Amino acid sequence: MDFQVIKVKEDVLQENSKRADELRKYLKSKGIYMINVMASPGSGKTTLLTKLIKILNKDFNIGVMEADIDGDVDAKTISEQTGVKTIQIHTSGACHLTAQMTHDAIDNFDIEGLNLLFLENVGNLVCPAEFDTGSNINMMLLSVPEGDDKPLKYPLMFQVSKIAVITKKDVKEIFNFDFERCKQNILRRNSEAKIFEVSALKDEGVEELANYIKELIKKSL
Amino acid sequence: MDFQVIKVKEDVLQENSKRADELRKYLKSKGIYMINVMASPGSGKTTLLTKLIKILNKDFNIGVMEADIDGDVDAKTISEQTGVKTIQIHTSGACHLTAQMTHDAIDNFDIEGLNLLFLENVGNLVCPAEFDTGSNINMMLLSVPEGDDKPLKYPLMFQVSKIAVITKKDVKEIFNFDFERCKQNILRRNSEAKIFEVSALKDEGVEELANYIKELIKKSL
Repeated sequence: MDFQVIKVKEDVLQENSKRADELRKYLKSKGIYMINVMASPGSGKTTLLTKLIKILNKDFNIGVMEADIDGDVDAKTISEQTGVKTIQIHTSGACHLTAQMTHDAIDNFDIEGLNLLFLENVGNLVCPAEFDTGSNINMMLLSVPEGDDKPLKYPLMFQVSKIAVITKKDVKEIFNFDFERCKQNILRRNSEAKIFEVSALKDEGVEELANYIKELIKKSL
Repeated sequence: MDFQVIKVKEDVLQENSKRADELRKYLKSKGIYMINVMASPGSGKTTLLTKLIKILNKDFNIGVMEADIDGDVDAKTISEQTGVKTIQIHTSGACHLTAQMTHDAIDNFDIEGLNLLFLENVGNLVCPAEFDTGSNINMMLLSVPEGDDKPLKYPLMFQVSKIAVITKKDVKEIFNFDFERCKQNILRRNSEAKIFEVSALKDEGVEELANYIKELIKKSL
Protein backbone atom coordinates (compact mmCIF):
# COMPACT_ATOMS: atom_id res chain seq x y z
CA MET A 1 0.00 0.00 0.00
CA ASP A 2 2.68 2.44 1.05
CA PHE A 3 4.72 1.58 -2.01
CA GLN A 4 1.81 2.20 -4.34
CA VAL A 5 1.15 5.59 -2.82
CA ILE A 6 4.79 6.61 -3.04
CA LYS A 7 5.02 5.42 -6.64
CA VAL A 8 1.96 7.46 -7.62
CA LYS A 9 3.41 10.51 -5.92
CA GLU A 10 6.67 10.13 -7.84
CA ASP A 11 4.71 9.85 -11.08
CA VAL A 12 2.68 12.92 -10.19
CA LEU A 13 5.77 14.96 -9.37
CA GLN A 14 7.58 13.84 -12.54
CA GLU A 15 4.56 14.58 -14.72
CA ASN A 16 4.22 17.93 -12.95
CA SER A 17 7.84 18.92 -13.66
CA LYS A 18 7.33 18.17 -17.35
CA ARG A 19 4.21 20.31 -17.49
CA ALA A 20 5.92 23.07 -15.52
CA ASP A 21 8.73 23.21 -18.09
CA GLU A 22 6.19 23.34 -20.92
CA LEU A 23 4.34 26.19 -19.21
CA ARG A 24 7.58 28.12 -18.67
CA LYS A 25 8.41 27.80 -22.37
CA TYR A 26 4.92 28.93 -23.33
CA LEU A 27 5.06 31.97 -21.05
CA LYS A 28 8.54 32.85 -22.37
CA SER A 29 7.17 32.77 -25.91
CA LYS A 30 4.54 35.28 -24.78
CA GLY A 31 7.14 37.47 -23.04
CA ILE A 32 5.66 36.84 -19.59
CA TYR A 33 7.62 36.46 -16.34
CA MET A 34 5.76 34.56 -13.60
CA ILE A 35 6.40 34.75 -9.86
CA ASN A 36 5.00 32.07 -7.54
CA VAL A 37 4.20 33.54 -4.12
CA MET A 38 4.02 31.08 -1.22
CA ALA A 39 3.52 31.38 2.55
CA SER A 40 1.42 30.31 5.53
CA PRO A 41 -2.17 31.51 5.80
CA GLY A 42 -2.31 35.12 6.95
CA SER A 43 1.37 35.94 6.44
CA GLY A 44 0.51 38.99 4.35
CA LYS A 45 0.78 37.76 0.74
CA THR A 46 -2.14 39.82 -0.55
CA THR A 47 -1.14 43.01 1.29
CA LEU A 48 2.45 42.77 0.03
CA LEU A 49 1.28 42.02 -3.53
CA THR A 50 -0.99 45.06 -3.49
CA LYS A 51 1.91 47.32 -2.50
CA LEU A 52 4.36 45.70 -4.93
CA ILE A 53 1.92 46.03 -7.82
CA LYS A 54 1.41 49.73 -7.13
CA ILE A 55 5.16 50.20 -7.68
CA LEU A 56 5.72 47.70 -10.51
CA ASN A 57 2.63 48.89 -12.37
CA LYS A 58 4.67 51.74 -13.83
CA ASP A 59 7.03 49.37 -15.64
CA PHE A 60 4.95 46.28 -16.32
CA ASN A 61 1.53 45.09 -17.43
CA ILE A 62 0.62 42.90 -14.49
CA GLY A 63 -1.85 40.08 -13.98
CA VAL A 64 -2.62 38.27 -10.71
CA MET A 65 -3.90 34.74 -10.17
CA GLU A 66 -5.19 34.07 -6.66
CA ALA A 67 -5.42 30.45 -5.56
CA ASP A 68 -7.57 29.46 -2.60
CA ILE A 69 -9.47 26.40 -1.50
CA ASP A 70 -12.56 28.57 -1.19
CA GLY A 71 -13.58 32.25 -1.13
CA ASP A 72 -12.56 35.18 -3.31
CA VAL A 73 -11.65 37.91 -0.81
CA ASP A 74 -8.04 38.18 -2.01
CA ALA A 75 -8.88 38.50 -5.71
CA LYS A 76 -11.39 41.23 -4.85
CA THR A 77 -8.87 43.11 -2.69
CA ILE A 78 -6.14 43.05 -5.33
CA SER A 79 -8.52 44.02 -8.11
CA GLU A 80 -10.13 46.87 -6.15
CA GLN A 81 -6.88 48.28 -4.80
CA THR A 82 -4.68 48.05 -7.88
CA GLY A 83 -7.00 47.81 -10.88
CA VAL A 84 -4.88 45.03 -12.46
CA LYS A 85 -6.37 41.94 -14.08
CA THR A 86 -7.13 39.33 -11.43
CA ILE A 87 -8.49 35.81 -11.51
CA GLN A 88 -9.55 33.56 -8.61
CA ILE A 89 -8.55 29.90 -8.78
CA HIS A 90 -10.36 27.39 -6.56
CA THR A 91 -8.34 24.25 -5.89
CA SER A 92 -11.26 21.94 -4.96
CA GLY A 93 -9.76 21.23 -1.56
CA ALA A 94 -6.19 20.79 -2.80
CA CYS A 95 -3.46 22.24 -0.60
CA HIS A 96 -1.28 23.42 -3.48
CA LEU A 97 -1.23 24.33 -7.16
CA THR A 98 0.17 22.01 -9.81
CA ALA A 99 1.60 23.19 -13.13
CA GLN A 100 -1.50 21.82 -14.86
CA MET A 101 -3.86 23.76 -12.59
CA THR A 102 -1.80 26.88 -13.23
CA HIS A 103 -1.87 26.29 -16.99
CA ASP A 104 -5.64 25.73 -16.93
CA ALA A 105 -6.09 28.99 -15.03
CA ILE A 106 -3.92 30.85 -17.55
CA ASP A 107 -6.04 29.42 -20.37
CA ASN A 108 -9.07 30.99 -18.68
CA PHE A 109 -7.32 34.31 -18.23
CA ASP A 110 -6.65 36.68 -21.11
CA ILE A 111 -2.87 37.11 -20.78
CA GLU A 112 -2.29 38.92 -24.10
CA GLY A 113 -0.27 42.07 -23.48
CA LEU A 114 0.79 41.08 -19.95
CA ASN A 115 4.48 40.75 -19.10
CA LEU A 116 4.40 40.05 -15.36
CA LEU A 117 2.18 37.47 -13.72
CA PHE A 118 1.91 36.94 -9.96
CA LEU A 119 0.60 33.58 -8.82
CA GLU A 120 -0.55 33.63 -5.19
CA ASN A 121 -0.45 30.01 -4.11
CA VAL A 122 -2.63 28.38 -1.40
CA GLY A 123 -1.67 29.51 2.12
CA ASN A 124 0.48 26.60 3.23
CA LEU A 125 4.14 26.33 4.21
CA VAL A 126 4.43 22.67 3.18
CA CYS A 127 2.75 21.28 0.06
CA PRO A 128 3.09 24.14 -2.45
CA ALA A 129 6.88 23.82 -2.13
CA GLU A 130 6.73 20.33 -3.63
CA PHE A 131 5.12 21.35 -6.91
CA ASP A 132 6.86 23.41 -9.60
CA THR A 133 4.11 25.69 -10.94
CA GLY A 134 5.96 26.67 -14.12
CA SER A 135 6.90 30.04 -12.61
CA ASN A 136 10.28 31.67 -13.21
CA ILE A 137 10.95 32.12 -9.53
CA ASN A 138 9.55 31.23 -6.11
CA MET A 139 9.08 34.01 -3.57
CA MET A 140 8.17 32.91 -0.05
CA LEU A 141 6.98 35.05 2.84
CA LEU A 142 7.48 34.47 6.54
CA SER A 143 5.65 36.85 8.86
CA VAL A 144 7.16 38.00 12.13
CA PRO A 145 4.28 36.60 14.28
CA GLU A 146 5.04 33.10 12.94
CA GLY A 147 8.46 33.11 14.60
CA ASP A 148 12.11 33.04 13.55
CA ASP A 149 12.41 29.24 13.94
CA LYS A 150 10.25 28.32 10.93
CA PRO A 151 13.13 27.57 8.50
CA LEU A 152 14.14 24.76 10.87
CA LYS A 153 10.69 23.19 10.78
CA TYR A 154 9.66 23.69 7.13
CA PRO A 155 12.91 23.09 5.24
CA LEU A 156 11.64 22.50 1.67
CA MET A 157 9.78 25.82 1.39
CA PHE A 158 12.99 27.71 2.18
CA GLN A 159 15.09 25.46 -0.06
CA VAL A 160 13.01 26.07 -3.18
CA SER A 161 12.50 29.83 -2.73
CA LYS A 162 15.13 32.14 -4.15
CA ILE A 163 13.42 35.16 -2.56
CA ALA A 164 12.53 35.04 1.14
CA VAL A 165 10.57 38.01 2.45
CA ILE A 166 10.16 38.56 6.18
CA THR A 167 6.86 40.44 6.50
CA LYS A 168 5.16 42.47 9.26
CA LYS A 169 8.53 43.71 10.51
CA ASP A 170 6.73 46.59 12.26
CA VAL A 171 5.63 44.17 15.02
CA LYS A 172 9.02 42.56 15.60
CA GLU A 173 9.39 43.93 19.11
CA ILE A 174 6.00 42.64 20.23
CA PHE A 175 6.85 39.16 18.99
CA ASN A 176 10.48 39.17 20.08
CA PHE A 177 11.57 38.18 16.56
CA ASP A 178 15.32 37.82 15.99
CA PHE A 179 16.10 38.85 12.39
CA GLU A 180 19.71 37.70 12.50
CA ARG A 181 18.80 34.27 13.82
CA CYS A 182 16.03 33.99 11.22
CA LYS A 183 18.38 34.95 8.37
CA GLN A 184 20.92 32.38 9.51
CA ASN A 185 18.16 29.77 9.64
CA ILE A 186 17.04 30.69 6.11
CA LEU A 187 20.59 30.64 4.69
CA ARG A 188 21.17 27.25 6.27
CA ARG A 189 18.33 25.95 4.08
CA ASN A 190 19.33 27.91 0.97
CA SER A 191 22.68 29.69 0.94
CA GLU A 192 21.70 31.65 -2.19
CA ALA A 193 18.41 33.02 -0.85
CA LYS A 194 17.93 36.75 -1.25
CA ILE A 195 16.30 37.94 1.99
CA PHE A 196 14.16 41.05 2.40
CA GLU A 197 12.53 42.59 5.46
CA VAL A 198 9.32 44.51 4.85
CA SER A 199 6.31 46.05 6.46
CA ALA A 200 3.79 46.40 3.65
CA LEU A 201 1.45 48.22 6.01
CA LYS A 202 4.06 50.88 6.79
CA ASP A 203 5.54 50.86 3.26
CA GLU A 204 8.94 49.80 4.55
CA GLY A 205 11.25 47.69 2.41
CA VAL A 206 8.75 47.18 -0.41
CA GLU A 207 10.62 49.50 -2.81
CA GLU A 208 13.87 47.48 -2.43
CA LEU A 209 12.00 44.26 -3.15
CA ALA A 210 10.30 45.84 -6.18
CA ASN A 211 13.67 46.99 -7.52
CA TYR A 212 15.11 43.51 -7.12
CA ILE A 213 12.18 42.03 -9.02
CA LYS A 214 12.65 44.59 -11.81
CA GLU A 215 16.31 43.58 -12.15
CA LEU A 216 15.38 39.89 -12.21
CA ILE A 217 12.91 40.43 -15.02
CA LYS A 218 15.37 42.56 -17.01
CA LYS A 219 18.01 39.83 -16.74
CA SER A 220 15.56 37.15 -17.89
CA LEU A 221 14.69 38.95 -21.15
CA MET B 1 -3.97 9.74 -14.48
CA ASP B 2 -6.22 11.97 -12.42
CA PHE B 3 -8.59 9.12 -11.76
CA GLN B 4 -5.83 6.85 -10.55
CA VAL B 5 -4.57 9.51 -8.12
CA ILE B 6 -8.05 10.19 -6.78
CA LYS B 7 -8.71 6.47 -6.36
CA VAL B 8 -5.50 6.02 -4.36
CA LYS B 9 -6.39 9.00 -2.19
CA GLU B 10 -9.82 7.53 -1.44
CA ASP B 11 -8.21 4.23 -0.52
CA VAL B 12 -5.71 6.02 1.71
CA LEU B 13 -8.44 7.99 3.49
CA GLN B 14 -10.63 4.92 3.94
CA GLU B 15 -7.73 2.87 5.27
CA ASN B 16 -6.81 5.78 7.53
CA SER B 17 -10.31 6.00 9.02
CA LYS B 18 -10.21 2.29 9.84
CA ARG B 19 -6.87 2.64 11.57
CA ALA B 20 -8.04 5.75 13.40
CA ASP B 21 -11.01 3.83 14.84
CA GLU B 22 -8.70 1.00 15.92
CA LEU B 23 -6.38 3.47 17.62
CA ARG B 24 -9.29 5.17 19.41
CA LYS B 25 -10.45 1.79 20.74
CA TYR B 26 -6.92 0.93 21.85
CA LEU B 27 -6.51 4.26 23.68
CA LYS B 28 -9.92 3.86 25.32
CA SER B 29 -8.87 0.46 26.61
CA LYS B 30 -5.85 2.17 28.19
CA GLY B 31 -8.00 4.97 29.66
CA ILE B 32 -6.35 7.64 27.52
CA TYR B 33 -8.06 10.68 25.99
CA MET B 34 -6.24 12.14 22.96
CA ILE B 35 -6.56 15.69 21.63
CA ASN B 36 -5.33 16.52 18.11
CA VAL B 37 -4.06 20.11 17.95
CA MET B 38 -3.97 21.70 14.50
CA ALA B 39 -3.12 25.17 13.17
CA SER B 40 -0.95 27.16 10.77
CA PRO B 41 2.77 27.45 11.45
CA GLY B 42 3.46 29.96 14.20
CA SER B 43 -0.09 30.27 15.48
CA GLY B 44 0.99 29.51 19.02
CA LYS B 45 0.26 25.77 19.43
CA THR B 46 3.30 25.08 21.60
CA THR B 47 2.87 28.17 23.79
CA LEU B 48 -0.80 27.39 24.41
CA LEU B 49 -0.05 23.72 25.14
CA THR B 50 2.60 24.71 27.66
CA LYS B 51 0.11 26.90 29.54
CA LEU B 52 -2.72 24.35 29.30
CA ILE B 53 -0.50 21.56 30.60
CA LYS B 54 0.54 23.61 33.61
CA ILE B 55 -3.15 23.78 34.59
CA LEU B 56 -4.27 20.28 33.55
CA ASN B 57 -1.22 18.68 35.13
CA LYS B 58 -2.97 18.79 38.51
CA ASP B 59 -5.75 16.49 37.32
CA PHE B 60 -4.18 14.33 34.65
CA ASN B 61 -1.04 12.43 33.74
CA ILE B 62 -0.17 14.09 30.47
CA GLY B 63 1.95 13.09 27.49
CA VAL B 64 2.74 15.20 24.43
CA MET B 65 3.60 14.09 20.90
CA GLU B 66 5.07 16.84 18.73
CA ALA B 67 4.92 16.33 14.96
CA ASP B 68 7.17 18.32 12.65
CA ILE B 69 8.73 17.84 9.27
CA ASP B 70 12.09 18.61 10.84
CA GLY B 71 13.55 20.05 14.05
CA ASP B 72 12.78 19.37 17.69
CA VAL B 73 12.44 22.86 19.21
CA ASP B 74 8.81 22.35 20.26
CA ALA B 75 9.38 19.03 22.00
CA LYS B 76 12.28 20.58 23.92
CA THR B 77 10.21 23.63 24.90
CA ILE B 78 7.29 21.56 26.20
CA SER B 79 9.53 19.14 28.04
CA GLU B 80 11.66 21.86 29.67
CA GLN B 81 8.75 24.07 30.65
CA THR B 82 6.27 21.49 31.91
CA GLY B 83 8.28 18.39 32.73
CA VAL B 84 5.71 16.09 31.08
CA LYS B 85 6.63 13.19 28.84
CA THR B 86 7.28 14.40 25.31
CA ILE B 87 8.17 12.72 22.04
CA GLN B 88 9.15 14.31 18.71
CA ILE B 89 7.67 12.79 15.55
CA HIS B 90 9.33 13.55 12.21
CA THR B 91 6.98 13.13 9.27
CA SER B 92 9.66 12.66 6.54
CA GLY B 93 8.36 15.63 4.59
CA ALA B 94 4.67 14.79 5.01
CA CYS B 95 2.32 17.72 5.63
CA HIS B 96 0.08 15.85 8.10
CA LEU B 97 -0.13 12.90 10.46
CA THR B 98 -2.03 9.74 9.58
CA ALA B 99 -3.57 7.41 12.16
CA GLN B 100 -0.82 4.89 11.39
CA MET B 101 1.94 7.44 11.99
CA THR B 102 0.25 8.39 15.25
CA HIS B 103 -0.06 4.75 16.29
CA ASP B 104 3.60 4.09 15.44
CA ALA B 105 4.61 7.08 17.55
CA ILE B 106 2.50 5.82 20.47
CA ASP B 107 4.19 2.44 20.20
CA ASN B 108 7.52 4.22 20.66
CA PHE B 109 6.25 6.18 23.63
CA ASP B 110 5.67 4.63 27.01
CA ILE B 111 2.02 5.58 27.58
CA GLU B 112 1.42 3.41 30.64
CA GLY B 113 -0.13 5.50 33.40
CA LEU B 114 -1.02 8.43 31.12
CA ASN B 115 -4.64 9.54 30.77
CA LEU B 116 -4.34 12.62 28.55
CA LEU B 117 -2.34 12.77 25.34
CA PHE B 118 -1.84 15.92 23.28
CA LEU B 119 -0.89 15.42 19.65
CA GLU B 120 0.54 18.58 18.09
CA ASN B 121 0.07 18.10 14.35
CA VAL B 122 2.24 19.60 11.59
CA GLY B 123 1.72 23.36 11.20
CA ASN B 124 -0.69 23.44 8.28
CA LEU B 125 -4.27 24.68 7.94
CA VAL B 126 -5.13 22.30 5.10
CA CYS B 127 -3.88 18.70 5.00
CA PRO B 128 -4.04 17.65 8.67
CA ALA B 129 -7.81 18.28 8.56
CA GLU B 130 -8.23 15.48 6.02
CA PHE B 131 -6.78 12.73 8.18
CA ASP B 132 -8.44 11.36 11.30
CA THR B 133 -5.54 10.73 13.70
CA GLY B 134 -7.51 8.48 16.06
CA SER B 135 -7.88 11.33 18.56
CA ASN B 136 -11.07 11.89 20.56
CA ILE B 137 -11.36 15.49 19.49
CA ASN B 138 -9.80 18.05 17.14
CA MET B 139 -8.78 21.43 18.56
CA MET B 140 -7.74 24.04 16.01
CA LEU B 141 -6.04 27.37 16.63
CA LEU B 142 -6.31 30.54 14.59
CA SER B 143 -4.01 33.37 15.63
CA VAL B 144 -5.09 36.99 15.42
CA PRO B 145 -2.25 38.01 13.03
CA GLU B 146 -3.56 35.47 10.48
CA GLY B 147 -6.79 37.42 10.06
CA ASP B 148 -10.50 36.89 10.74
CA ASP B 149 -11.26 35.74 7.17
CA LYS B 150 -9.49 32.37 7.43
CA PRO B 151 -12.62 30.22 8.01
CA LEU B 152 -13.78 31.36 4.56
CA LYS B 153 -10.60 30.19 2.89
CA TYR B 154 -9.80 26.98 4.79
CA PRO B 155 -13.24 25.42 5.31
CA LEU B 156 -12.36 21.80 6.16
CA MET B 157 -10.13 22.67 9.13
CA PHE B 158 -12.98 24.56 10.77
CA GLN B 159 -15.54 21.88 9.86
CA VAL B 160 -13.66 19.04 11.54
CA SER B 161 -12.64 20.92 14.69
CA LYS B 162 -15.04 20.91 17.61
CA ILE B 163 -12.84 23.36 19.52
CA ALA B 164 -11.67 26.55 17.79
CA VAL B 165 -9.24 28.69 19.76
CA ILE B 166 -8.45 32.22 18.65
CA THR B 167 -4.94 32.85 19.96
CA LYS B 168 -2.78 35.96 20.50
CA LYS B 169 -5.83 38.02 21.39
CA ASP B 170 -3.54 40.56 23.12
CA VAL B 171 -2.53 41.94 19.68
CA LYS B 172 -6.05 42.24 18.26
CA GLU B 173 -5.93 46.03 18.04
CA ILE B 174 -2.66 46.07 16.14
CA PHE B 175 -4.06 43.63 13.58
CA ASN B 176 -7.56 45.08 13.41
CA PHE B 177 -9.05 41.65 14.09
CA ASP B 178 -12.85 41.46 14.30
CA PHE B 179 -13.79 38.73 16.81
CA GLU B 180 -17.49 38.84 16.03
CA ARG B 181 -16.92 38.49 12.27
CA CYS B 182 -14.45 35.68 12.89
CA LYS B 183 -16.88 33.82 15.16
CA GLN B 184 -19.62 34.10 12.58
CA ASN B 185 -17.23 32.80 9.93
CA ILE B 186 -16.29 29.85 12.16
CA LEU B 187 -19.91 29.01 13.00
CA ARG B 188 -20.79 29.13 9.31
CA ARG B 189 -18.34 26.25 8.84
CA ASN B 190 -19.34 24.39 11.99
CA SER B 191 -22.41 25.51 13.90
CA GLU B 192 -21.44 23.33 16.89
CA ALA B 193 -17.92 24.69 17.28
CA LYS B 194 -16.99 25.78 20.79
CA ILE B 195 -14.97 28.98 20.38
CA PHE B 196 -12.40 30.32 22.84
CA GLU B 197 -10.34 33.52 22.82
CA VAL B 198 -6.97 33.34 24.53
CA SER B 199 -3.66 35.02 25.02
CA ALA B 200 -1.36 32.30 26.28
CA LEU B 201 1.39 34.87 26.74
CA LYS B 202 -0.77 37.01 29.04
CA ASP B 203 -2.54 34.00 30.63
CA GLU B 204 -5.94 35.17 29.42
CA GLY B 205 -8.67 32.68 28.59
CA VAL B 206 -6.50 29.59 29.11
CA GLU B 207 -8.25 28.61 32.36
CA GLU B 208 -11.68 28.55 30.64
CA LEU B 209 -10.32 26.33 27.89
CA ALA B 210 -8.68 24.03 30.44
CA ASN B 211 -11.98 23.73 32.33
CA TYR B 212 -13.82 22.84 29.14
CA ILE B 213 -11.26 20.15 28.36
CA LYS B 214 -11.61 18.74 31.89
CA GLU B 215 -15.39 18.49 31.40
CA LEU B 216 -14.98 16.80 28.03
CA ILE B 217 -12.69 14.16 29.48
CA LYS B 218 -15.01 13.56 32.45
CA LYS B 219 -17.93 13.02 30.08
CA SER B 220 -15.96 10.57 27.94
CA LEU B 221 -15.14 8.28 30.86
